[in-house]
Amino acid sequence: MVSEPDSWSLHPQLARDTLPAGDMSLCQLRLMNDANFPWLLLVPRRQNAIEITDLTETDQAQLMREVAQTARALKASTACDKINVAAIGNVVSQLHVHVVARFRSDAAWPKPVWGFAPACAYEDPAREQFVIALRRQLNLASQG
Amino acid sequence: MVSEPDSWSLHPQLARDTLPAGDMSLCQLRLMNDANFPWLLLVPRRQNAIEITDLTETDQAQLMREVAQTARALKASTACDKINVAAIGNVVSQLHVHVVARFRSDAAWPKPVWGFAPACAYEDPAREQFVIALRRQLNLASQG
Repeated sequence: MVSEPDSWSLHPQLARDTLPAGDMSLCQLRLMNDANFPWLLLVPRRQNAIEITDLTETDQAQLMREVAQTARALKASTACDKINVAAIGNVVSQLHVHVVARFRSDAAWPKPVWGFAPACAYEDPAREQFVIALRRQLNLASQG
Repeated sequence: MVSEPDSWSLHPQLARDTLPAGDMSLCQLRLMNDANFPWLLLVPRRQNAIEITDLTETDQAQLMREVAQTARALKASTACDKINVAAIGNVVSQLHVHVVARFRSDAAWPKPVWGFAPACAYEDPAREQFVIALRRQLNLASQG
């Protein structure tokens, strides 16, 4: 199920819905283009991976490390009340993990964000500022 | 944030909503008492853990192994179309990971199960059969 990163490509719907925020060792980090919630995706660069169990044990462990790094960075840059983490994939099957900053004051609280409301695209300055803060927390080089 | 398993106790709402299905190395495995979906919870026996990042790195790695074991067992015992995995915790903050078997034919597909419909309690024989099949897949001893 697992192949070299070179043969991996992002699913077109994920490419449409999200913006690149950096590359981690296993995953491409993407920002959901929805200003309603600070909402990231981790997409393992492994062709044909649909379930977490399609990854090797080594990749599963790395995915957990990247989820934890992303969760810490998101919490630090947003001061949110709760982090929601999920691998669902009922619509887009390519394995991707949602890491979402939640606030008791947000529009969907305490419900999950999936299917809550249509996405509201970021205005450019807000998105850029958020990605810069996040990348600083993650010690990621600036986007190439 | 992490303490000895002895001082851990299950949150009362999780105790009400779920049934014990066995103990793994880190987590208590629980069955959501909702016959609408084959739906498991993994609850790390670590006091005061709310976010995944409240666990030590060793426990995070073990959590990933137990999520993968549970996902494989659930897929094998239900022949489901997709596994959904999530740590949300907006209502019950005690860290717990949902592992849900999803079918293209289920009532909520492709939406997530959270908040979809009121739980429909299992009839006893169905629940017992499901837990027995699952425990066999997980090589867990019979419930004490």
